[in-house]
Amino acid sequence: MNEKLILASGSPRRANLLRQIGLTFEVVRPDIDERVLPAETPETYATRMSESKMLRSRELLEATTASVILCADTIVVLDGEIVGKPESRSDAVQVLQRMSNRKHQVLTSVTIGETTTTRQRSFLVDTVVTFRQMSVDECEAYWETGEPADKSGSYGIQGLGSIFVAGIEGSPSNVAGLPLMETAAELKFFGIDCLAAY
Amino acid sequence: MNEKLILASGSPRRANLLRQIGLTFEVVRPDIDERVLPAETPETYATRMSESKMLRSRELLEATTASVILCADTIVVLDGEIVGKPESRSDAVQVLQRMSNRKHQVLTSVTIGETTTTRQRSFLVDTVVTFRQMSVDECEAYWETGEPADKSGSYGIQGLGSIFVAGIEGSPSNVAGLPLMETAAELKFFGIDCLAAY
Repeated sequence: MNEKLILASGSPRRANLLRQIGLTFEVVRPDIDERVLPAETPETYATRMSESKMLRSRELLEATTASVILCADTIVVLDGEIVGKPESRSDAVQVLQRMSNRKHQVLTSVTIGETTTTRQRSFLVDTVVTFRQMSVDECEAYWETGEPADKSGSYGIQGLGSIFVAGIEGSPSNVAGLPLMETAAELKFFGIDCLAAY
Repeated sequence: MNEKLILASGSPRRANLLRQIGLTFEVVRPDIDERVLPAETPETYATRMSESKMLRSRELLEATTASVILCADTIVVLDGEIVGKPESRSDAVQVLQRMSNRKHQVLTSVTIGETTTTRQRSFLVDTVVTFRQMSVDECEAYWETGEPADKSGSYGIQGLGSIFVAGIEGSPSNVAGLPLMETAAELKFFGIDCLAAY
């Protein structure tokens, strides 16, 4: 019998990834301040975000029943800098042009913890994504589809953005928002076994 | 205005991948002999399969209206050999044990052609998949979930099988059954532009 799982994320992609490995769960949406601190590295930022989501989830849940909470934060990193959601059409086109014909990173911090104890663990997973060459016209046409507007890095790899992806090196599920191999292995230490749950 | 597209595949994953890049299409299911010929290489086999599907689709469709047909065949290759669907529980467990803690290839041949002419093009896309170490118990538990039974290579990367995937090198959509970057680029030569269709 598996422990009860709570996904602390409003991302439908993360929920789909967890369903893909046979898990059932409830959802909470921790509201946190997502601003980047001065001189904060991408790794430190992502870890601080998933751990802040854990802290806020613990407050929201007021642990009455034993559960395992799963938090994650995924960022796009280019030239060592965090690339957020685009502020405008020209911002998105500029970011996509910078990513054209080269590699960037997708970095996820995952934090897993128990409601009834202070026990928790965080880990980082890094995947390299290579884009093909993209013309300005293509980037503009892509903006017009509406997909880039609410996406970190101005693209969605689970959508039309996949036509720009020449290849990746690393975890494919990480690029979609949750590294499944690493998450499943860690969940097992918290009493949740995907192979038993399926 | 895009040409009309026909997906010659019964695979729901391929249909989902095409929808992901905004394309609308009809589906035909070409019935072909899928047996491997003696001494046939994986590359030759996959190409022969996607081209046989094209030939059969052309017969089924009896070109009355202009359309573009998309055919694909995806195989799992281990030590230079094609790994088909498992014949039994012990076959699946044996295959998974052979893939444990090492790399294998996922190879897709795509053939795109026009109904009103004999024009067609085929290309191959190859992705390397690395599995983590898997115990016999895990492989057996995975078999019990029912997922491996109808899958080439005895696993589904779009399902629970993803908990075994340490990483990939190459196209992530190729592993799911259709390499989207390459397919979208080739479809453009046949008058179908994803960026315009979306």
